[in-house]
Amino acid sequence: MAESARRARGGGGAARRAARTAVSFETARYIERNIPNFEVLTEEALEIIEHNADTVLEEIGVNFPDNPDALALWRDAGADVQGERVRIPRGLARKLCATAPSTITQVARNRDRDVVIGGKSLVLAPVYGPPFVRDAAGGRRYATMADFEKFVKLGYMSKWLHHSGGTVCEPTDIPVNKRHLDMLHAHMTLSDKPFMGSVTEPSRAQDSVDMCGILFGKDFVQENTVMTSLININSPMTFDDVMMGALKVYAENNQACIISPFIVGGAMAPVSVAGTLTQVLAETLAGIAYSQLVRPGAPVIMGAFVTSIDMNSGAPTFGTPEAAHITYGAGQLARRMNLPYRSAGSFNGSKLPDAQAAYETSNSLNMGLLSGVNFMLHACGWLEGGLVSSFEKFVMDADQLGTLHHLARGIEIDENAQAMDAIREVGPGGHYLGCAHTQNNFREAFWKSDLLDYKPFETWSDEGARDTQALATARMEKMLADYQQPALDPAIREALDAFVAERKAAEPDSFT
Amino acid sequence: MAESARRARGGGGAARRAARTAVSFETARYIERNIPNFEVLTEEALEIIEHNADTVLEEIGVNFPDNPDALALWRDAGADVQGERVRIPRGLARKLCATAPSTITQVARNRDRDVVIGGKSLVLAPVYGPPFVRDAAGGRRYATMADFEKFVKLGYMSKWLHHSGGTVCEPTDIPVNKRHLDMLHAHMTLSDKPFMGSVTEPSRAQDSVDMCGILFGKDFVQENTVMTSLININSPMTFDDVMMGALKVYAENNQACIISPFIVGGAMAPVSVAGTLTQVLAETLAGIAYSQLVRPGAPVIMGAFVTSIDMNSGAPTFGTPEAAHITYGAGQLARRMNLPYRSAGSFNGSKLPDAQAAYETSNSLNMGLLSGVNFMLHACGWLEGGLVSSFEKFVMDADQLGTLHHLARGIEIDENAQAMDAIREVGPGGHYLGCAHTQNNFREAFWKSDLLDYKPFETWSDEGARDTQALATARMEKMLADYQQPALDPAIREALDAFVAERKAAEPDSFT
Repeated sequence: MAESARRARGGGGAARRAARTAVSFETARYIERNIPNFEVLTEEALEIIEHNADTVLEEIGVNFPDNPDALALWRDAGADVQGERVRIPRGLARKLCATAPSTITQVARNRDRDVVIGGKSLVLAPVYGPPFVRDAAGGRRYATMADFEKFVKLGYMSKWLHHSGGTVCEPTDIPVNKRHLDMLHAHMTLSDKPFMGSVTEPSRAQDSVDMCGILFGKDFVQENTVMTSLININSPMTFDDVMMGALKVYAENNQACIISPFIVGGAMAPVSVAGTLTQVLAETLAGIAYSQLVRPGAPVIMGAFVTSIDMNSGAPTFGTPEAAHITYGAGQLARRMNLPYRSAGSFNGSKLPDAQAAYETSNSLNMGLLSGVNFMLHACGWLEGGLVSSFEKFVMDADQLGTLHHLARGIEIDENAQAMDAIREVGPGGHYLGCAHTQNNFREAFWKSDLLDYKPFETWSDEGARDTQALATARMEKMLADYQQPALDPAIREALDAFVAERKAAEPDSFT
Repeated sequence: MAESARRARGGGGAARRAARTAVSFETARYIERNIPNFEVLTEEALEIIEHNADTVLEEIGVNFPDNPDALALWRDAGADVQGERVRIPRGLARKLCATAPSTITQVARNRDRDVVIGGKSLVLAPVYGPPFVRDAAGGRRYATMADFEKFVKLGYMSKWLHHSGGTVCEPTDIPVNKRHLDMLHAHMTLSDKPFMGSVTEPSRAQDSVDMCGILFGKDFVQENTVMTSLININSPMTFDDVMMGALKVYAENNQACIISPFIVGGAMAPVSVAGTLTQVLAETLAGIAYSQLVRPGAPVIMGAFVTSIDMNSGAPTFGTPEAAHITYGAGQLARRMNLPYRSAGSFNGSKLPDAQAAYETSNSLNMGLLSGVNFMLHACGWLEGGLVSSFEKFVMDADQLGTLHHLARGIEIDENAQAMDAIREVGPGGHYLGCAHTQNNFREAFWKSDLLDYKPFETWSDEGARDTQALATARMEKMLADYQQPALDPAIREALDAFVAERKAAEPDSFT
């Protein structure tokens, strides 16, 4: 989108020079599935859950604390509002949700990297939110803005990652009330992939919209979705006024929000899958209906961040079969609402990027693909239950995301794929390595890792007997060494710098 | 099955004493899926592949070298036999396959551990065949009989493993022509789970049948399937006389065989998924048809061991999307033949039980469950492309197999699962940890690992900051320390000992 912004601001020669000298790194197009979704809930079970969710909304209701504007909107829409409690008559929430679009196109400043969220698509975005980072060299430590920038660069360089994400780690060395400015600035200037806005205060959501106005042009932002931001529901059934304030800013400005319960099953939802799905549906119905009260047609994504709990320790657990069931089921519920769906990710509870981390992550990534997820936040880099963004795991997971792309292609059945000529040519007891069909097809036939080791034992031993983490350290370092900043109109860059400086000067630092 | 064997031989008091003192270790019942299969091939694609497979059999044919008996059977059945090449008229192979049973019950000497192979079942068996073993303490080394016995003990102690397997590693310190005797003796005496027979010579298959006659009673073996053995096809389209000889022994004795192409895609089959599926179907049709020529009704399992290749190095690769496509597709083809299906496993190409090993393994285990596999060989312990049986990975994978059991349960939707009372009791802003529904359900609600670490970072650090491999070493050592041999009638044990001694004395040692 640099094109229209450049015209608007009259940037010219410098931008063209920057574009000529910048290296372009390949990024795969977002996934468009050519495989079916995996569905575990029967029609009868879906109807029971939908009926129960409406019962929850009607009988129990949801809370919108400290938010008289929201309560007024609900009252006008026909809900029963008493204090902060909103009880929604059966069918009303679903009816309100019907104005939400089924598909969202999020525009990137590099238009080749626009993403479509909805239908058969799957968009992959990195880890979001951890206060700590880890790498093999430095161990576990509080995240800084320098770490944040490294993650944005790695995301830009990662072929299978379509989205730059949002809070790839919390830059704890920047004041809480100002770090959103630096984070957005980093996504806008160090990458050209789509990104997320701030949700920690409504004013920070507005800053995000204003910075996008600089990057894309103000009118363009009103007409196009250029951010997808994460609005968590405070489960069970509570809609925090700060998050709802940010949602309001984004909805009013035509920007997309993921409206997502954050549930550790057994603590914030019932200890059963069907009960959790009922609550997830009730909460997302209420939240999405609210977004449509704010602005009918506002782009939203139905989210489900759901995991299970270790009942002995109280720790959340990841990559579990119960999380898979919920993810499959919530996908079916989202499709019946005709809404884009967010779930799954590189979830795991391990402290290290080891086998536990990988088992749990693969379980979640695979179920995410098969459950019809359209937007996968946390698709790479998550460690230790979301407390840590891991550099090595970021590149390890980002490599595995390639398997999802190839799985989603499905099975080709044209004449070339049938390969009857090859079978005839080779015959019993022969081998295919040299046959014409193999020579013509081998380059594209199989997914190939850019990270994992397939070498013979002896070669691998001679090269230092490296485990996956060690291979990832080397790859991460190479990616950062190879990184080249994507071109950006210097006038836009200067305007972004000025905006950040001005907003930072406007209030004192706060670290709480 | 000790019961009838004991009666047959008149064993008595000693057996009962042994049964009283032996500890019984819990083993989960084999999986019965309450979830659908994942199907990627359309009806049209399935019909094309089936048509092409028949074209392969009719036009190109398959080789049965050095096997005049097999060629005679084929000729009598109406095939066109020229030299060792057998061309099978369209439709004949499938017609012959129709006498194979759709479901096999393999009896264990502990009848609680009988397994059903077919329909919606999934039976999990350990790694098969590696000449090397690895553990953290000793590194990578040639496998010995002592290693073999440790793996059988670990399999016996593994809750989620239904089957003791076969060649869990190659005991390279025992002569090649005698090791099958020691391996079978170990499975029969150190475990009470079902097991596999020898296939490396027809005479060793006969030894396997004879030893089962001692363990179960001779008549019982003729009337019941007590072994499932692995018959590999020498792809492309070649049926080795040694393997076919072993198959003949088993088929004649009512014992089950997995008839399985062993394919590295791009080398032993075309570099495309549809082409590979065509060859897999042609080969298994021919092999299973042959088993039914030997004995109509002989129990067989349609196998597909298929992986892809790294075209740069020629190394096989595992847990790849192409392997997943083939596994899903072959499952559909097997179900259309109404035959039990074997595929997937703890496949990976890593040298260490690290993140690469776990990513690739999880990819394969999950696709195995969803593709409708009925018998999963190599379900735990596989490392380094099948060259190594890993002690740590055995217990790591065996723990993950629990996730497949819970996934397969599907989603309950009864009143308790709906949990509406819990949602009413807790309400907006509450928490579920203490509510009645949680207290009544938490023990059974979530799968729980017996291995992985969910502890807070500080606790984990204080306990030594162990990675998954270190946790697995500790668990493996505890399992071996806790191991207690299952009771066996001493008369049977003596008869097995005597059989092995007699057969070993009958010929000189051979190590080739």
